[in-house]
Amino acid sequence: MGYDKTDDLTINTIRVLAADATFNANSGHPGAPMGMAPVAHVLFNKFLKFNPKNPKWLNRDRFVLSNGHGCMLQYALLHLYGYALSIDDLKAFRSVDSITPGHPEAHDTPGIEVTTGPLGQGICNAVGLAMAQAHTGAVFNKPGFELVNNYTYCFLGDGCLMEGVSSEASSLAGHLQLGNLIAIYDDNHISIDGDTNQAFTEDVVKRYESYGWQVITVADGDSDLAGIEAAIKEAQSVKDKPTIIKLHTTIGFGSKQQGTHSVHGSALKADDIKQLKEKWGFNPEESFAVPQEVYERCGKASSAGAAAEQEWEKLFASYGEKYKSEHDDLVRRQKGELPEGWEKSLPVYTPKDSAVASRKLSEIVLQNIHQVIPELFGGSADLTGSNLTRWKDAVDFQPPATGLGDYTGRYVRYGVREHGMGAILNGLAAYGTILPYGGTFLNFVSYAAGAVRLSALSQVRTLWVATHDSIGLGEDGPTHQPIETLAHFRALPNCMVWRPADGNETSAAYYVALTSKHTPSIMALSRQNLPQLESSTIERAIKGGYVLHDVENADITLVSTGSEVCICIDAVKELEKKGIKARVVSIPCFEVFDAQPQDYRLSVLPDGIPSLSVEVMSTMGWERYTHEQFGLNRFGASGAYKDVYKKFEFTPEGVVKRAQATIDFWKDVPNIRSPLNRAFKQII
Amino acid sequence: MGYDKTDDLTINTIRVLAADATFNANSGHPGAPMGMAPVAHVLFNKFLKFNPKNPKWLNRDRFVLSNGHGCMLQYALLHLYGYALSIDDLKAFRSVDSITPGHPEAHDTPGIEVTTGPLGQGICNAVGLAMAQAHTGAVFNKPGFELVNNYTYCFLGDGCLMEGVSSEASSLAGHLQLGNLIAIYDDNHISIDGDTNQAFTEDVVKRYESYGWQVITVADGDSDLAGIEAAIKEAQSVKDKPTIIKLHTTIGFGSKQQGTHSVHGSALKADDIKQLKEKWGFNPEESFAVPQEVYERCGKASSAGAAAEQEWEKLFASYGEKYKSEHDDLVRRQKGELPEGWEKSLPVYTPKDSAVASRKLSEIVLQNIHQVIPELFGGSADLTGSNLTRWKDAVDFQPPATGLGDYTGRYVRYGVREHGMGAILNGLAAYGTILPYGGTFLNFVSYAAGAVRLSALSQVRTLWVATHDSIGLGEDGPTHQPIETLAHFRALPNCMVWRPADGNETSAAYYVALTSKHTPSIMALSRQNLPQLESSTIERAIKGGYVLHDVENADITLVSTGSEVCICIDAVKELEKKGIKARVVSIPCFEVFDAQPQDYRLSVLPDGIPSLSVEVMSTMGWERYTHEQFGLNRFGASGAYKDVYKKFEFTPEGVVKRAQATIDFWKDVPNIRSPLNRAFKQII
Repeated sequence: MGYDKTDDLTINTIRVLAADATFNANSGHPGAPMGMAPVAHVLFNKFLKFNPKNPKWLNRDRFVLSNGHGCMLQYALLHLYGYALSIDDLKAFRSVDSITPGHPEAHDTPGIEVTTGPLGQGICNAVGLAMAQAHTGAVFNKPGFELVNNYTYCFLGDGCLMEGVSSEASSLAGHLQLGNLIAIYDDNHISIDGDTNQAFTEDVVKRYESYGWQVITVADGDSDLAGIEAAIKEAQSVKDKPTIIKLHTTIGFGSKQQGTHSVHGSALKADDIKQLKEKWGFNPEESFAVPQEVYERCGKASSAGAAAEQEWEKLFASYGEKYKSEHDDLVRRQKGELPEGWEKSLPVYTPKDSAVASRKLSEIVLQNIHQVIPELFGGSADLTGSNLTRWKDAVDFQPPATGLGDYTGRYVRYGVREHGMGAILNGLAAYGTILPYGGTFLNFVSYAAGAVRLSALSQVRTLWVATHDSIGLGEDGPTHQPIETLAHFRALPNCMVWRPADGNETSAAYYVALTSKHTPSIMALSRQNLPQLESSTIERAIKGGYVLHDVENADITLVSTGSEVCICIDAVKELEKKGIKARVVSIPCFEVFDAQPQDYRLSVLPDGIPSLSVEVMSTMGWERYTHEQFGLNRFGASGAYKDVYKKFEFTPEGVVKRAQATIDFWKDVPNIRSPLNRAFKQII
Repeated sequence: MGYDKTDDLTINTIRVLAADATFNANSGHPGAPMGMAPVAHVLFNKFLKFNPKNPKWLNRDRFVLSNGHGCMLQYALLHLYGYALSIDDLKAFRSVDSITPGHPEAHDTPGIEVTTGPLGQGICNAVGLAMAQAHTGAVFNKPGFELVNNYTYCFLGDGCLMEGVSSEASSLAGHLQLGNLIAIYDDNHISIDGDTNQAFTEDVVKRYESYGWQVITVADGDSDLAGIEAAIKEAQSVKDKPTIIKLHTTIGFGSKQQGTHSVHGSALKADDIKQLKEKWGFNPEESFAVPQEVYERCGKASSAGAAAEQEWEKLFASYGEKYKSEHDDLVRRQKGELPEGWEKSLPVYTPKDSAVASRKLSEIVLQNIHQVIPELFGGSADLTGSNLTRWKDAVDFQPPATGLGDYTGRYVRYGVREHGMGAILNGLAAYGTILPYGGTFLNFVSYAAGAVRLSALSQVRTLWVATHDSIGLGEDGPTHQPIETLAHFRALPNCMVWRPADGNETSAAYYVALTSKHTPSIMALSRQNLPQLESSTIERAIKGGYVLHDVENADITLVSTGSEVCICIDAVKELEKKGIKARVVSIPCFEVFDAQPQDYRLSVLPDGIPSLSVEVMSTMGWERYTHEQFGLNRFGASGAYKDVYKKFEFTPEGVVKRAQATIDFWKDVPNIRSPLNRAFKQII
């Protein structure tokens, strides 16, 4: 446990780099990096298992900086330990197109596991990473082959603990007895508003004990390196509980302003940086200077990590000789590729098949594919029987001690914790061996908006089985009926929102969602039954939008999604009786339809014909595709779903009325342009 | 403390009504009402202070059903105690246009304080109601005149406790030492997925102790009425801590399926209802039958409540003699009307005034109006210095024991708890004497989406001071830069999203937000400085959209909001050099602009001229107003804000380029129609 001057120098180098980078950027958060440098040093130098030359090594320990605003800490570490992050990258901190943005972004920077910054998310991601480890280990480890046994370490601050999302995931982590999860709480008594005594006076130790965590306190996180080391060892020794180490630190340690909120979120002054460099034996005239012995000290740990990976690769190779299919499965999973031919398991329907709710169609998909896609790992936020997210005979992911399942189980009981679930999905997906989905009502995906946004930004493949997707849920009423939800997530970049109209479209939605390695999907699914449509096919629907019913010299195109498509089909017959010819287009996914070639898109929504969208929620966004919009720009109503549809005229008659109004309104306009024609290209 | 047969009969009547109504609707949740009938009876009969004939009496106790799915409990109580809710209303449970919807809705049903159902919200609303009581009491009570001293009672279930939002508000409630808040936790071990041991095994007692609450346990909530009564008394006796009573109950008590999740969310079977009616001495052939002695027992409590109100009205009248201005202030506040002439305090700007960030303009408004609007009650989710939400010399709302403020204080340190804050705002607004606002970054209003949605649905006046409203926040990067956020909340019915472009527009935004009694507002405010525009005035801006710069025979209309308006103004000059005439329209609020007469709207966005919107985020929704859209349908970037704007071409040159493309693209279309022309009226 001996620590020497080089340890101190390494710690101070981290601090100085954080001060230099924030000063250079004139922006950023020096306080947390300077306060957490000691624990970061102990962790990276003595515990963390990683190879900077292969940041994706499966059995590396995962490190998550939940207090992501302190990212200069992580960038400094990545640099010192030899990841592909240069001093110039540190100098480019917080500048456009750098790999050192204002908060850590997983898709851009080697060594960053998950995208953090929005408070509370990282600790939940860490729970997901730890669940993924427990599951992957349980499935793939064999006697003599402990292939997967890494830890997940997470730094977090007061802000993360105040966010409710961290409560959700922490409670679940305690229930799941995740002994591989070690959180380190930077107890520095300071948040942006000042002393935490203004708003955060709860007893964090007691709270985490209530969740079933081991809690260890280290009184002097500024200098007691041996104490920090002992705490991490103790954390590792308890196998059936996650651990949180409450570490008292001084924010901005070394600064003249240390211990105050003035070092939290803005650069130190020049004279302050000067005094701390002098104090710690750095040349105050130099910036971004790293003593050679610091590189050497860190390099030693990195070399040890590289050697450990070499050992592991050997182990994995001999595992492959003995357990070929498991070996190949693990290799495949890490590439994000699905087993060959899996798509043959997707159900296909004909119009003769009976009407089925799309939530049920989704259940049939899951039932059919779960055996061919072993990385599929599902759950629900306490709505299993409503979301229909659990295949028959699924084993629950539970600690064996509960008697309710085990860690090989692939179904998670998330509890009523939508936001925590969403953030956990991101961690599960980031681990690299799992394809996670979670269920709730579409309306309550909004509770998880913060996490869904990060799925999209960090480009992970997560799926939301979002049932009860409209006023069609009926009696539960307006508190549960989405109106703005589709518009919200359609406006989110890199997020696919699917609203399938029948069985083939549901299969198509799953096909695209599961094969899109870098994009999350939300599947909006009906509670009510939907008929199997004429001429819907998986091949057509995977284009995101297609012609479902065509007719020559059409007077109008009806454009719809999900449960309203069949109403449009019925409206066509009514319109026919009035001598009006209508086409019907289904657009189950805007995002995917928008990615099709323009000539295809224009064949679906052509010039010369007025169009009317029909979707039983906010019309926002539909103006991009259609000339007129029939929707619901108000809250819904509580009642039997047919009554509610009728109240708002979402019936064939209601559609006919508006189709006629649309035709009338546009009849004097020559050469009607499709709204798909645009003057210039959007920035996407 | 004596309880007799009539008490039992009353309890069983509640249970039978819940069973009958859910059976009749073939939908709903009988389990919680049947389990919680005993505690509800004790509370309503022995403790709750209310007058059913005046459900808005200021000093009534507030009752919140956080587990809102159990609303048949509340509807039954409202009926039995004589609120304007008839047996026919119970028969209409969950049918279209009834006042007994699937979850309780405050704006529709007398006696419902807040809209609940989305889990976790109600307990946070209760925290807000309790804060409002503490504040109102501290401000208005005088020696001998304890005008405002009501309790807030809240029922909640396992689901509410699992939701992170409840953790946030509960932690804050403990910090705030809200002795007037009494929560009753229905510990029935059942959630939708089955036994809570599958996902929720934390120690709730310990958790609430960690928050600083008093925790009392009642082992037999099914029949120990005296124990329940004693627990509530004990709760009342502790003045500096909120209390949670953990009450063990049997879900669906009396049913053959009692204690299982099959009674949670669907109606009991006919034979099950028959047996429980027989068991409890009801006629199994009758439905919705209430024994006369039950009405009498309940009516007695109601009469006592009515008498208490009479006494209170006398007290209030004599208070008015002694403290006229306070009296009148309290009367005024309850009407939701602002003090006469308050609007004269709104700052007015001329183009000569210097450029100021709109977050700073918002601070100036708050600084100017806080003295004339004493009910203004603000706060921030730990971003006070960034949101600029605190006026100079504000007193913090804190328990006096902290030495940091007192309950007369009007500034709340919410901590990093956006969702909790949002739900607390709803409770504060529902109390009737407070006009609450809360601050965070615009991007993190999304964390609170669940609460904002309920602000809109329940028609309360809450304000979000949502700063750092775009990529203009700069270095913090994509994790903090809103893209989809405006589209999301613009799609939410009954929610005003304001994005003012300068000082006069900021004043206008506050004017409309503060005078709209039944609509929440989100003010999207810039971090960067914005110039004071020529011809912006409060009078124009309160229309939600107006012509900022006009020119005859214009070639194009540029339409923008917030920080991009001044870029458009600069673009006009560049366009002029190229011989192109451009108008500029500012639409700071879609919702308000949409409410203007169509002829006014068409004068702003007229036929015959192509239009281009310029807003530095998702273009979704702009197609409703403009022919072409310049926006950002991708995530932003980390860097100095000017560099980020440049990267995405949000510069006068970037606008010019797209304006030219727009003109080119539309030049061949004769008689261009304004997108405001629609074929039929939307359902709003």
